[in-house]
Amino acid sequence: MPAPKDFLEYVDSNADAFIKRLSEAVSIKSVSGEASYRPELFGVETQQFDLGKHVMDGQELPLPKVVLGRLGNDPNKKTVLVYGHFDVQPAYVSDGWDTDPFTLTIQPNGQLVGRGSSDDKGPVLGWLNILQYHYENKKELPVNLRCCFEGMEESGSEGLDELVERESKPGGWFDGVDCVCISDNYWLNTRTPALTYGLRGLTYFKLNISGPAKDLHSGVFGRAVHEPMTDLIKLMSTLVDVNGQILIPGVDEMVNQADTEERKLYETLDYSIKDIEETAGGPIALSSDKVEVLMNRMRNPSLSLHGIEGAFYGPGAKTVIPAKVSGKFSIRLVPPQTPENINPLVKAHIESEFAKLGSKNTMELEDLHGGKPWVSDINHWNFQAARIATKAVYNVDPDMTREGGSIPITLTFADALGVNVLLLPMGRSDDGAHSTNEKLDRSNFIEGTKLLGTYLYEVGAIATK
Amino acid sequence: MPAPKDFLEYVDSNADAFIKRLSEAVSIKSVSGEASYRPELFGVETQQFDLGKHVMDGQELPLPKVVLGRLGNDPNKKTVLVYGHFDVQPAYVSDGWDTDPFTLTIQPNGQLVGRGSSDDKGPVLGWLNILQYHYENKKELPVNLRCCFEGMEESGSEGLDELVERESKPGGWFDGVDCVCISDNYWLNTRTPALTYGLRGLTYFKLNISGPAKDLHSGVFGRAVHEPMTDLIKLMSTLVDVNGQILIPGVDEMVNQADTEERKLYETLDYSIKDIEETAGGPIALSSDKVEVLMNRMRNPSLSLHGIEGAFYGPGAKTVIPAKVSGKFSIRLVPPQTPENINPLVKAHIESEFAKLGSKNTMELEDLHGGKPWVSDINHWNFQAARIATKAVYNVDPDMTREGGSIPITLTFADALGVNVLLLPMGRSDDGAHSTNEKLDRSNFIEGTKLLGTYLYEVGAIATK
Ligand SMILES: [Zn+2]
Ligand SMILES: [Zn+2]
Ligand SMILES: [Zn+2]
Ligand SMILES: [Zn+2]
Repeated sequence: MPAPKDFLEYVDSNADAFIKRLSEAVSIKSVSGEASYRPELFGVETQQFDLGKHVMDGQELPLPKVVLGRLGNDPNKKTVLVYGHFDVQPAYVSDGWDTDPFTLTIQPNGQLVGRGSSDDKGPVLGWLNILQYHYENKKELPVNLRCCFEGMEESGSEGLDELVERESKPGGWFDGVDCVCISDNYWLNTRTPALTYGLRGLTYFKLNISGPAKDLHSGVFGRAVHEPMTDLIKLMSTLVDVNGQILIPGVDEMVNQADTEERKLYETLDYSIKDIEETAGGPIALSSDKVEVLMNRMRNPSLSLHGIEGAFYGPGAKTVIPAKVSGKFSIRLVPPQTPENINPLVKAHIESEFAKLGSKNTMELEDLHGGKPWVSDINHWNFQAARIATKAVYNVDPDMTREGGSIPITLTFADALGVNVLLLPMGRSDDGAHSTNEKLDRSNFIEGTKLLGTYLYEVGAIATK
Repeated sequence: MPAPKDFLEYVDSNADAFIKRLSEAVSIKSVSGEASYRPELFGVETQQFDLGKHVMDGQELPLPKVVLGRLGNDPNKKTVLVYGHFDVQPAYVSDGWDTDPFTLTIQPNGQLVGRGSSDDKGPVLGWLNILQYHYENKKELPVNLRCCFEGMEESGSEGLDELVERESKPGGWFDGVDCVCISDNYWLNTRTPALTYGLRGLTYFKLNISGPAKDLHSGVFGRAVHEPMTDLIKLMSTLVDVNGQILIPGVDEMVNQADTEERKLYETLDYSIKDIEETAGGPIALSSDKVEVLMNRMRNPSLSLHGIEGAFYGPGAKTVIPAKVSGKFSIRLVPPQTPENINPLVKAHIESEFAKLGSKNTMELEDLHGGKPWVSDINHWNFQAARIATKAVYNVDPDMTREGGSIPITLTFADALGVNVLLLPMGRSDDGAHSTNEKLDRSNFIEGTKLLGTYLYEVGAIATK
């Protein structure tokens, strides 16, 4: 027998009520595949700084203001420009922090754990500590001071280059600066203070592959369409070898090989494979030769794969074919490499490899930001002052290092002001900047404040010689 | 001159105050690299079902209860078991939804947009609509009804297999069931109703690579250590070709080639390359031959790369070396493939490829869940009833399809009860289950409710013949 006619009519006449009930059912967030949904998501508070605007991720967003400072104008004193940043890298408890990343936790061993403790709020406060001393005790600083503290360092220091160039001209805020001191890096190890005279540059890429208009179900579309993730993984696998060799033609080849003399510079540093493996927390050094590892970090380029935006990233087992995925990778640059001469090599390589795939998906390569590498003169009085200050506070000679990371503003200051730039780190190699459980040792914060102050006095001493 | 002694003493005696101020600075979430932090995160509410417990992602979590129903015990009637699920896939506005996924939005074209509208809350409510009719009108159902509605389908139906096996035994809840009807899949296209007699199976993997104890800074560690992402991307690139071919030795080879007769089955289906490309939303079909595409979906295995857990996934440019990354991928299985005969092939392949890399990182392969493929007898009276009901409601003969997706419980019912199982879909191929902007057309919900009711009456008619 067919369904009764009045049943069919009933369904028609109750359609709106059925839809309303479906609406109520849909409003229940009965997600079973993500653990985070089930106990409770935690709320996140933010505090905003006084701001301008820029466009990021397609949104117009406020830009944190740069804080500039000026104290003293004595023609008999050197004028020192100090730089730091008050913004930090992202941090979630879910990344693996043992404590809330935004609550500073003081450990029994003296570690001050929290996002930004070492990078770069500790050093910035080091300078403020010094100023407070002089203010409360009505003392004059031994130098004229200029301060530049920004809030966009971890996002490419947007807008700062233009500001520095403008203010470095005659009559500008930085006019008359004799040297620059940046405290935003780390000792080579956990024992020996360091002065840093070189930095690698950076060029950061976002490789987008898109195909379907929306995420697809792998049951329905698996082996029926070109999947963006398949293409992206193939392309990302052509960038770097497991041993660190960069596979993009022309990138490694641009850097000269170290000769015997250059190798000796690295042999003298207080460093061992044990240091790097302890800091990394695993027996994963790429070489058992300390000189190789140090040269790879300080004077060779590197390529790292950071992750994928747009793919499934949560816990559990989601059977999705993501519609648009973006691979994030970056290359650390050393002289003579620059974003200008490296980016075309990356573009040519990616385009060639994508063409080989024969995919019907769409590929686009974006370069998000970058900065040139930098090397400074270690015989300048700026470095001498820091060397003497280090000896005074820590009673050892500092390691003279090049840093593997990038602080693009370093080069901006060097170029715009034409003066010597010194990197004078406060923290240790195992502080975990950009990582989980970032910390600054109490002693580094305190002795480091002393070091920064002593350095100013040693610069002052030079002026009066 | 050295720093004044009282300055050094001042720093020592004010250390606690300095640390407190650092603590306050750290408490400001001045993250510049993630857009989501800056305007505001939105809060998410959850509603929990009445629950048991299980362990997921290392946490003990409540398990939604299975809802069982029973109505009628007339020995002159067939006993039909209907199944559905009330849990849904994850959904965030940030995934690309045009509207809040958990607020049903009725579009002018009649689409009911919302997570779960089609998968599977619409069909479940279809059954309830039918029951409501009979209850309010004091009518008897034409069959004895058994209901099984669960809340863990999207997470492997944990615990349900055991329940079904237990309740299928003499005296159990499902004892006496004559046939099963599951409404939890989709038409082959957007035009023609379908009955489904086959499903692919699934085996889902999590490939873990770990090395450092915590996330590292790519400046400090780039080219100094083995990076887990580099290893993972290499391994994931060895699994599937851009054309969909599975590269794990033995997997594709296990399935026989289709002969001319089998190809004819697929030629008769109402389907075109235009259908798949319209549903996918892009010109990305792997073949221009509809039979190839249909066979790839219905009777060939597929491998999809879903994403990576533990790597950087947000917008912006984070220069992290992730410490532990987990690649998620799955294989859709067809007879004679099963998780039992496929998983060892995957394991052997991954182990062999990882050994080739020579990495010092640690690799581990987990299989998260799986299910066998399934094929049913389309000449059974259960299918005949559904065929007649379809013709009655939609005035066309249904497409007889195999589905590319997996509903492992189908096989559990077939095995435990030893009766015919019918898949009777309510929604269309473009509903976007597991995707953004999931919808159910108003007409499919309403006509589909009629179809399910008519089907019960056709089964009832068979019992009285
Ligand atoms: Zn920094
Ligand atoms: Zn930083
Ligand atoms: Zn479903
Ligand atoms: Zn589903």
